[in-house]
Amino acid sequence: MKKNILMLGGFGFLGKNLIEVFKNKYNIIVFDHLKNNMDSVISYSGDFSNANDLEIIFINHRIDLVFHLISNTTPGSSNKDIVYDIEKNLISTINLLELMKKYSIPKIVFTSSGGTIYGKINSPNGFAMENDPTFPICSHGICKLAIERYIYLFSYLYGIDYLILRISNLYGKYHTSNNLGFINVSLRKILSEKKMEVWGNGEIIRDYIFVEDCVQIIRDLLEKNVNNEVFNIGSGEGHSINEIINIIRGFNCDFTIEYKKGRNFDVDKVILSIKKLKRINDFQFTNIEDGIKKTITWMNKDGE
Amino acid sequence: MKKNILMLGGFGFLGKNLIEVFKNKYNIIVFDHLKNNMDSVISYSGDFSNANDLEIIFINHRIDLVFHLISNTTPGSSNKDIVYDIEKNLISTINLLELMKKYSIPKIVFTSSGGTIYGKINSPNGFAMENDPTFPICSHGICKLAIERYIYLFSYLYGIDYLILRISNLYGKYHTSNNLGFINVSLRKILSEKKMEVWGNGEIIRDYIFVEDCVQIIRDLLEKNVNNEVFNIGSGEGHSINEIINIIRGFNCDFTIEYKKGRNFDVDKVILSIKKLKRINDFQFTNIEDGIKKTITWMNKDGE
Repeated sequence: MKKNILMLGGFGFLGKNLIEVFKNKYNIIVFDHLKNNMDSVISYSGDFSNANDLEIIFINHRIDLVFHLISNTTPGSSNKDIVYDIEKNLISTINLLELMKKYSIPKIVFTSSGGTIYGKINSPNGFAMENDPTFPICSHGICKLAIERYIYLFSYLYGIDYLILRISNLYGKYHTSNNLGFINVSLRKILSEKKMEVWGNGEIIRDYIFVEDCVQIIRDLLEKNVNNEVFNIGSGEGHSINEIINIIRGFNCDFTIEYKKGRNFDVDKVILSIKKLKRINDFQFTNIEDGIKKTITWMNKDGE
Repeated sequence: MKKNILMLGGFGFLGKNLIEVFKNKYNIIVFDHLKNNMDSVISYSGDFSNANDLEIIFINHRIDLVFHLISNTTPGSSNKDIVYDIEKNLISTINLLELMKKYSIPKIVFTSSGGTIYGKINSPNGFAMENDPTFPICSHGICKLAIERYIYLFSYLYGIDYLILRISNLYGKYHTSNNLGFINVSLRKILSEKKMEVWGNGEIIRDYIFVEDCVQIIRDLLEKNVNNEVFNIGSGEGHSINEIINIIRGFNCDFTIEYKKGRNFDVDKVILSIKKLKRINDFQFTNIEDGIKKTITWMNKDGE
């Protein structure tokens, strides 16, 4: 019998990519604030902060696995209203965990934030490892950290298995946000307006991962039945914004750059150590030039 | 000019001990849900989760330092209603920090939880160090961790200095709780009913610190103007419950012991490493026999 996956936030960027790959093997039930008539999934629309909206799903379906992909804030917005961040993300997740306990749901996969949870990286080689200290400089990252700890607590007290994925900066198809995801946001602006925006001098370094690679890695971790672990999910390589700009220019894109003042919630450099992941799965990553090229092709063909 | 200290929860166990020592050197303003006509302090009573109750103090007084001693849950109670814990402790503290930002208050001292923040200690020698991983097994500890991270964030973003004190198990005079603080709760029950209660087999090991030692250590850290650091505040020694029982028996106390089932939020062993503290202040601790004797003397004379 096919397993039933409840995908919270399944009509977002990562969710749509996961569904595309997972729908043949699993029954997918999506909960999202967006409505969508996607084929081959059952969908519920509702408010994540309303536990009643969620509970009806657990009443109607035997859920084998919950994917928690919802985040109601961004690193930038979160410091402006911290109480909102805590209420919408942390408390809503506690209500989810209490429902999982009530309905004996065996496992949760949570997408944490590789980009914000560590804060300023102090390791000598500049790579963030899963056991490194976590001092986020935005509320978004602190809420992700607190959620990680509550997931651990529910595992410890009630035996709910978990997989915590600290994902780096995703890019690729099905992305729609206008303010989150540097590569996609920039590409969309370049293709439509022939310009892009950079905060700071372009020397900020991030670890970018092609969304299709991320989905394959998650699929592999599930198939190997890895439980109760925290993984960095990134490419393990750092690229500055200026490097990304040069790659995009290489694809005959013509655009101007508007430089804006650096933002106080941006750390200088985040590269995720993926040693732990590689011990489980020696994955071959899409190189960033190919990933960006595929993303441009998707945008020109289907992207909004 | 004397500095003004706002002591949140100042009529609690640690608060009263702090006031006794600090009142000569500082002006003390107490905010507490309890009313108390203590000499030589200005007091406000109110609800910590109501920001308006707090704001009036910042309007009325120029505050130089905030002591945040309030906790509205115990390790045991916190797992039963996690949302309550988050709302009463975490969100209330965010409101406090926002007020400190608004009124440009330069510094906060926060009493975190040495006993719960680390969770199960994995270090080979059994000592918890400040940089060790933190995996609390109760919501109380997770909220303390999240508060520590938000205090760091407000320091990073707005320059509010902090001192975070991860205090171990306090005992001594002015303690009144009926369920928190093993030594005092046991002594009071022994003196009044000639019996005490033990959860588990008595082999749980804790780091007990005499409250007067704790106050001296905090005074020294303030006088040395140590800022933006996290310190374990404990004796650095572990004692099992059975050892404590033997010490109490040595003072000619006669009592029976009621053994109860172990509690799932109690870790087996917590001893705080105080190496970091000793580098700042090579404090001479009261030995536990003397501390318990003094506590019994206080109870027989003044204690409730």
